[in-house]
Parts: sequence; C-alpha cells; structure tokens
Amino acid sequence: RSGEMAKLTQLIDNEVFRVYATYATIVLLKMMLMSLITAYFRITRKAFVNPEDTASFGKGESAKKFLRTDPDVERVRRGHLNDLENIVPFLGIGLLYALSGPDLYTALLHFRIFAGARIAHTFAYLIPLPQPSRGLSWVVGYAVTISMAYKVLKTALYL
Amino acid sequence: RSGEMAKLTQLIDNEVFRVYATYATIVLLKMMLMSLITAYFRITRKAFVNPEDTASFGKGESAKKFLRTDPDVERVRRGHLNDLENIVPFLGIGLLYALSGPDLYTALLHFRIFAGARIAHTFAYLIPLPQPSRGLSWVVGYAVTISMAYKVLKTALYL
Amino acid sequence: RSGEMAKLTQLIDNEVFRVYATYATIVLLKMMLMSLITAYFRITRKAFVNPEDTASFGKGESAKKFLRTDPDVERVRRGHLNDLENIVPFLGIGLLYALSGPDLYTALLHFRIFAGARIAHTFAYLIPLPQPSRGLSWVVGYAVTISMAYKVLKTALYL
Repeated sequence: RSGEMAKLTQLIDNEVFRVYATYATIVLLKMMLMSLITAYFRITRKAFVNPEDTASFGKGESAKKFLRTDPDVERVRRGHLNDLENIVPFLGIGLLYALSGPDLYTALLHFRIFAGARIAHTFAYLIPLPQPSRGLSWVVGYAVTISMAYKVLKTALYL
Repeated sequence: RSGEMAKLTQLIDNEVFRVYATYATIVLLKMMLMSLITAYFRITRKAFVNPEDTASFGKGESAKKFLRTDPDVERVRRGHLNDLENIVPFLGIGLLYALSGPDLYTALLHFRIFAGARIAHTFAYLIPLPQPSRGLSWVVGYAVTISMAYKVLKTALYL
Repeated sequence: RSGEMAKLTQLIDNEVFRVYATYATIVLLKMMLMSLITAYFRITRKAFVNPEDTASFGKGESAKKFLRTDPDVERVRRGHLNDLENIVPFLGIGLLYALSGPDLYTALLHFRIFAGARIAHTFAYLIPLPQPSRGLSWVVGYAVTISMAYKVLKTALYL
C-alpha cells in the first residue's frame, strides 16, 4: 500500500500536474462563488423561485409577491451558467493536457491566461463592463481551451 | 504494455482512489436520475418545450397546448441545475483531493458526507421539505468541497 | 523529475487512456461548438439578453427591442444544457472506467458509441429531426454511461 500511495504522491508532486491542480481549484472556487452571489442577491432583492423559500415572509399573498425574477439575480445566474459551459471543458481538456507532457512554462501560460480570462469575464458580467470586455474575456478562455485540446489530440489521438 | 496497464490498475487499486471512484460514480448516477424524473413529469403532466415532442398528440392547436411549463417539471430542472453547479466542483476538486494523499478515513468522511448531503438536497427539493432543509443540505456539500479544496491547495499550490 | 514525467507520459501512452483522452476531447469540443452556434443565432436573429450587448444598435428604445428571446437561440441553448447534463457524467465516469482496466476493444466500443450518440443528438435537436430521433440518441448515450458506471463500481466499490 505504501508503494501505491507513493505513486499517487508522485502524480501530485509533478510540477505540471501541481499547476493544473492549483488553477483548476481556483476556477472551481470562483465558479462556486457565483452560488453565494446569487443567494446574496436573492435575499437582498427578495426575489425567490421556490414557494418554500418565502415561508419566513408570511403566508399566502404577502409571501407570494417575493416569487419573482430580479434582473441582478438573473445576471449572476447567466454568469454562473457561462462558467459551467466553459469551465467543464477546461477541467476535462486541462487534465488531459497536463498528462500529455507539456513544457512547464507553456502549461503555466495556458492555465494562468485561462484563470485570468474567467475572472475578468466574471467582473465584466457582474459590474457590467461595456462590450467587448465580456466578449473578449470569453474568447480568450475559449482559445486557451482549444489550444490545449490541440495538444491533447496531437499527443493522444486514438480513434 | 502490461507494465503500463499494471500502473493504471494500481491507481484504481489505491484505497483512497477507490473511495473517490465509488462516491463520484454514485453522485453522478444520482444526477443522471434527474433527467429521468424530468422526463417522467413532462410525460405525466404533458408539459413539453419542443414542438416535435408533441407531434404524437396530434397536429396544430391540439398539440400546441402541451407546449407549456409545469411547476413540477421546473422544480426538477432547478434541482438538476443545482446538481451540475455543485457536483462539477466536487468531481474536479475531489479527484485532486484523492491524489493529494489524504488519510483514508478523512477521505471517506469527506466523500460520504458530500454524497449524503446531495441525496438529502434532492429529497428536500423534490418533496419539497420546508426550509432550511434544502439550504442546510446545500451548505454541507459546499463546505465539504471547500475543505477538500483547502487540502489540494495546501498540498499542490504552484502559481 | 524526469522519472516523474516519464510516469505521466506512461499514463497518456496507455492505449485505453488515449482512447478516453481522444473521445473526451471530441465531445467537449462538440459541446463548446454550441456556444458559437448560440452566438451566431443571437447575432443573426438579433436576440440578446444583456442590455450592454445591444449598445452597438443605438440607445434607448431602438436597442431595447433586441432584448428578446428567439426560438432558434432557445433551441441551441437547450441542446447545450442537455450536453452539460450528459457529458459531465461521461467525463467523470469515463475517466474512472478508463482507469478500471477495461479491455481495449470494449472501451473503444463504449467511447465511440457515446460520441456518435451525442453528435446524433445535436443534429436531431438543431435540425430538428422528428422524434424519436432525439430521444433515442439521448437514451443510447445514457445507457453507455450506465454501462461504464457498472464496470467502475464492480472494479472499485469501496463504501
């Protein structure tokens, strides 16, 4: 058992894999933050979607008026869904990229740019910044993922 | 080749990794179940979103009335999206956590509590149970994921 | 360090793992394509959701009329969400399946059928094809994922 554990430790000790672990965790924590921001806006804007969530505001019509959509809540939710759509491909393709034996500095470049682009995307969406801020940050993250996918397919292609 | 295969087998033979494989599969199967529940409610409530899905109910106006939203369908869909938002971070961070060399019993504790919390969250959402049942089960799963992220960053941090 | 790198290279050199890397990357790229198709329909149908996205069409009422939903945009978005709901389980369970030591030809069969089913599902959704095309392609991808989950739990179960 200690031999097996040593092998797993070697994986997490590999520098490229550590870079992946670090940035994957950072972008996932950033995505998880969207849930807290949604909850914050739901509570401060009093805009809920489930009847059981408004029970503390009283019964019947007095509580029903809080079952409504709010533009700020919907904006955060769109940012959250955009994160899912872009961070899921990054997680999968990034893991395979980290295992495909890239140069450490090339890998660092890919992961840093992706994380930076997604953090910029969140600010551009939530503030909101005028376009093309959000569009550009989205494109940068997308392009980094495509670049990693190219490396994975070049290294591993087996149809 | 048999040497390589042996190494892969060692990964799946590692006890902590087996625990991750077991609970990751369980929560993903639970999430997949949401698709079946959505389909069940769409069919029994006759509430569809795509015109081609109502073709068997006849043509024109008689079929069009089934293109509608239903509160039960929407509730399951919200539970499904909440699963995606929380199970995706668990999958990524949990994998890295399992590779970061945690103690077997600490790992078991994390994975069991996360799976239990998400199963409780589903019951709380679908029955629905009065709050704070759903809120608390959500917080527990979230906190377990944060705890694993902390261990990953402590072990692997490489910016 | 070169010893560790060699071990990582061995993982990506394993044939079953290469098959997983190839098909996981293909279905993720296919999913990412949905973002581009959504953007294409938003621009050609002039149907946006964020006020800042319509600023280039002028100010006030003249731009506000482009903040609307469009059936083609909504259809692509539903296809995209369906991808997330099905490709996330495939990514996680497929990775564990690839590490559970399956026969190469059995693994190829699983991954090829899943990728084919999801590509067929996209065509069935976007054209759209009459049912049960979309339903059947969805069921095939779902069944392949369940089959892999069974193998993972049979190999790795550790509760």
